[in-house]
Amino acid sequence: MPYGYNGQILRVNLSQGTTSAEAIDELFCRKYLGGAGFVSYFLLKELRQGIDPLGPDNKLIFAPGPVTGIPLPGSGRHCVGAKSPLTGSYAKSESGGFWGAELKHAGYDAIIVEGKAEKPVYLWIHDGEASIRDASHLWGKSTKETQETIRVELGDNLIRVAGIGPAGENLVRIACIMNALKDAAGRGGMGAVMGSKNLKAIAVRGHKGPEVAEPERLKELRQWVLAHRELWASFAELGTGGAMEAWVDAGNVPVRNFLDGEFPEIVKISPQAVRDTIRIKMEGCYACPVRCKKVVKVDEPYSVDPDYGGPEYETLAAIGSNCGVSDLKAIARANELCNAYSLDTISAGDIVAFAMECFENGLLTTKDTGGIELRFGNAEAMCKTIELIAKREGIGDLLAEGTARAAQKIGKGAIEFAMQVKGLEIPMHDPRVKAALGLGYAVNPHGADHCANLHDTLFSQPGSSFDMFKPLGILEPIPADDLGPRKVSLFRDVQLFRIAQDSLVLCYFLPYDVDQTVDILAAVTGWRTSTTELLRVAERTLTMARSFNIREGLSAADDKLPNRFFQPKRNGVLSTKHYDPKQLDKAKSYYYTLMGWDAKTGVPTPEKLQELGIE
Amino acid sequence: MPYGYNGQILRVNLSQGTTSAEAIDELFCRKYLGGAGFVSYFLLKELRQGIDPLGPDNKLIFAPGPVTGIPLPGSGRHCVGAKSPLTGSYAKSESGGFWGAELKHAGYDAIIVEGKAEKPVYLWIHDGEASIRDASHLWGKSTKETQETIRVELGDNLIRVAGIGPAGENLVRIACIMNALKDAAGRGGMGAVMGSKNLKAIAVRGHKGPEVAEPERLKELRQWVLAHRELWASFAELGTGGAMEAWVDAGNVPVRNFLDGEFPEIVKISPQAVRDTIRIKMEGCYACPVRCKKVVKVDEPYSVDPDYGGPEYETLAAIGSNCGVSDLKAIARANELCNAYSLDTISAGDIVAFAMECFENGLLTTKDTGGIELRFGNAEAMCKTIELIAKREGIGDLLAEGTARAAQKIGKGAIEFAMQVKGLEIPMHDPRVKAALGLGYAVNPHGADHCANLHDTLFSQPGSSFDMFKPLGILEPIPADDLGPRKVSLFRDVQLFRIAQDSLVLCYFLPYDVDQTVDILAAVTGWRTSTTELLRVAERTLTMARSFNIREGLSAADDKLPNRFFQPKRNGVLSTKHYDPKQLDKAKSYYYTLMGWDAKTGVPTPEKLQELGIE
Repeated sequence: MPYGYNGQILRVNLSQGTTSAEAIDELFCRKYLGGAGFVSYFLLKELRQGIDPLGPDNKLIFAPGPVTGIPLPGSGRHCVGAKSPLTGSYAKSESGGFWGAELKHAGYDAIIVEGKAEKPVYLWIHDGEASIRDASHLWGKSTKETQETIRVELGDNLIRVAGIGPAGENLVRIACIMNALKDAAGRGGMGAVMGSKNLKAIAVRGHKGPEVAEPERLKELRQWVLAHRELWASFAELGTGGAMEAWVDAGNVPVRNFLDGEFPEIVKISPQAVRDTIRIKMEGCYACPVRCKKVVKVDEPYSVDPDYGGPEYETLAAIGSNCGVSDLKAIARANELCNAYSLDTISAGDIVAFAMECFENGLLTTKDTGGIELRFGNAEAMCKTIELIAKREGIGDLLAEGTARAAQKIGKGAIEFAMQVKGLEIPMHDPRVKAALGLGYAVNPHGADHCANLHDTLFSQPGSSFDMFKPLGILEPIPADDLGPRKVSLFRDVQLFRIAQDSLVLCYFLPYDVDQTVDILAAVTGWRTSTTELLRVAERTLTMARSFNIREGLSAADDKLPNRFFQPKRNGVLSTKHYDPKQLDKAKSYYYTLMGWDAKTGVPTPEKLQELGIE
Repeated sequence: MPYGYNGQILRVNLSQGTTSAEAIDELFCRKYLGGAGFVSYFLLKELRQGIDPLGPDNKLIFAPGPVTGIPLPGSGRHCVGAKSPLTGSYAKSESGGFWGAELKHAGYDAIIVEGKAEKPVYLWIHDGEASIRDASHLWGKSTKETQETIRVELGDNLIRVAGIGPAGENLVRIACIMNALKDAAGRGGMGAVMGSKNLKAIAVRGHKGPEVAEPERLKELRQWVLAHRELWASFAELGTGGAMEAWVDAGNVPVRNFLDGEFPEIVKISPQAVRDTIRIKMEGCYACPVRCKKVVKVDEPYSVDPDYGGPEYETLAAIGSNCGVSDLKAIARANELCNAYSLDTISAGDIVAFAMECFENGLLTTKDTGGIELRFGNAEAMCKTIELIAKREGIGDLLAEGTARAAQKIGKGAIEFAMQVKGLEIPMHDPRVKAALGLGYAVNPHGADHCANLHDTLFSQPGSSFDMFKPLGILEPIPADDLGPRKVSLFRDVQLFRIAQDSLVLCYFLPYDVDQTVDILAAVTGWRTSTTELLRVAERTLTMARSFNIREGLSAADDKLPNRFFQPKRNGVLSTKHYDPKQLDKAKSYYYTLMGWDAKTGVPTPEKLQELGIE
């Protein structure tokens, strides 16, 4: 069995009620690594073209990686993938926490969930054994009630639970899968896929992880992290978005559905404001000293349960500034609702903002909203709408379909207000500031994603992020709004490196540079490897995902941005600046070329598929 | 000043009689590394289109690299480049020995020689000082006489001399530059360029090399080499070509101008035969324990001076089997002649074989040869012809032009006997056995080269060469005769890695794997770097060379193989097998694509040039 792996995956067929272990060998592990690599491989290989994402033919894949569960900061993550009910295309989403590590310790390198259970079930995996258990009593319950009930009935308070709340059960297309109430595999509607399978939760407990090749080297890396707190202090102190206030000034933070640039109320909802008002502590993931996750407590006017954590940057902006909301307690409450119901906070915020703009422009009225004055800045309306989405009640049933489908149903030009790519709502970074990030939104196979992407501002001047990638030969800064060939090439490298991290699976927030990342993989597996191999595995992974989408009928035409980005903002620093669609087209074409995809159609060439060993 | 560099190059203008130092900074060093990288940069930047390679506008560049001259096995090499008088295109050639290390210790990272001296001169460089000295008394002298005279007149027996013999002076287009009588920058006629400048030699002596960042790490690597003799024992015991006898059976060794496959007399000229008959010792390069260079002594019927070393594999095959010659003493004598006169043994052997085939087919007669019966197997005729080439006497004047020009002058279909690409004669490996090597012969900017190339047989089964590249993610063997996309991609990786080695400059014969090679560069310079950066620098270097050729009017049509390879051999294992020209065309096109060059024309795209920062 290769170091770092259990050498087996768990296949669960809910239609048949069976579970079985399948062996994977070292060559397979090295070609696909784990996490996003495994997800891409199995989705491309095992899903038939044109299946219904919410039908029994879809498969839901949970994949930690070789790094997951080893005693090293940043090793608490895993990847979840399926055909997305939101986009109809390839989807993957990573989550932090403890669940992935526990799964590795329980003896599996991945889970493939197939079919659909007749009635609600949950999966119980412990120390190499797996069983399917009745979950009728859990259906309709919040993620917290679900976790607590399972822990009590299995008699172990250290069981880790990944599961869905009512949003997943109700097949809300933006439903996520929550782990331990605070961490989410958020994007692409993975929670709806879980709900469609009548699978309420996966409970795991394990006592033995795979062996690693060089524990001493990993210990050194761990000690290096501990000795360099200055490299992650901002995450430890403020969580994500420590520079949110400055980002508004720079134009990066969406305000009122990406319309505005000014939002002086930012000081009320920034991570600093969270720290100074409602935060009670910070928490972290498996084996990680960074502890970048805010935990908040609110008593009035809402009661917000600290067990649900607190709002990250994406949530603060999506549910806050992007809805024009500056009521931090309301944002905390909405965050709690999303985590309890299992809703993606980014998509939820964008959808509410979309509905608000529709409302303000008369495309939706109080007749549609059931009396809610769904205007920008109305915090109460925002919270209420999120609840309705999770329950698919009233206006929520329409919005539960996601912005793209909702806009189509609303008609009257509502699509112009739908801030999404391929159906996936746009995260909280504006491509008018970060040019290559916009390219990444456009071309990522799972839609607008800020993770497997490049944040241009980190490469526009020397600094720790710049240094992290310097070993790749990235020596000279490039302006954030540049989208020439050098930037496109940089984007491709960084995108591929991120995908490699998503395959290991390794957190982005640790300060390991690209060389140390290779070191980590080498220390875990004993392989002599390199950045070249790491990026090649990622190239294979991404090209498999692309091939999946091509098979589903997507094309270069789907690699586009909402028109809004081609206009300036109504105010603020970007009021005189916009994204150039021609520049984007040129960059897209060059990116395809660099990937070995047809420069016009974006279809991987037969030669590239052969080169990468993709059937 | 960056670790591993002196931070300055020496510019010598022979027309003006001036020398001057020019600073280079760390960013420049990191983008171009040294060796082949520096050569490509300066040739592209400083040479005007269409200049006469043998005129004063050509520049001759000598470039060691950051690794040259450090106390590490394999660090004795440097690169020489210019516009080639043989091919009219970009040329570079590496040489082992001690000269490059001495130049580094004398304070320079490169020498650019411009213009033409009015009368013969030599250059004297020592400890940061440089002067141009009269060499009238050296003109016409052998390389040995030249070296000895210079050492005496400068009063230092440890001076290292790179220089030319009469072949270089006579502008023989296959003249090389010899260092220390045994090592050659052999290919592309660099010796003729030196002769055209009236530059007889460059003598160097230095006492202080650049500092390195991590001497302890280099010491560890050195000790690792010493502790793993099994990885280089074959080189130490037999020099290059230890498997020559088996290679004949496999079809790899050229016999009678690449016509035949059978050569039972191989046992008389193999490295084993050299060892058992005429070899007196092995010698090595700077700081290297491998000592892979044969030294031979012959007393009768010829006297062969051990100071000129002995024949390597390429020489044994080029002057031996490829001329049908099985007289080892004659081969040793011819090798001595080449080293004394400064002739490239590969080109010399191919030219003699070409002339022999012309003679046997009546395209040349005794009238042309001055009575020499220039038939395959005639050892005496072979030696005589080589001498005539060096002196440009009789038939030698025609052959001194190289096979391509000679064939053109002879006419009558002689071009079919000219085994060359772009004018550079083909080394001693048959592409009918090694498919990607043939692609490399075709596309290499300096013509048919076996160094910056892939030897397919090393990747057709697991083994130490396979393992050397495994960290790049090359996990599964590929048949030697395969030329599909996976092989083309492998070729590109290996070719780029070889170019990176030629830029460091680091010997190929040491068993460092790709990761250790990165380690070496990191330990020398203190840079955090990676295989990705190393291959990117090589991509830049190769694309600059390609751009140079495009500017000179070369095109995809010049990336071709002689027709002979598309036919089977007359006998032996390849008598039923040939190279498929259509397969080559497809592979070429995919290679261009992978390089970011136009798939049809092979011209680097404007985007790729911009990406790589090539003007």
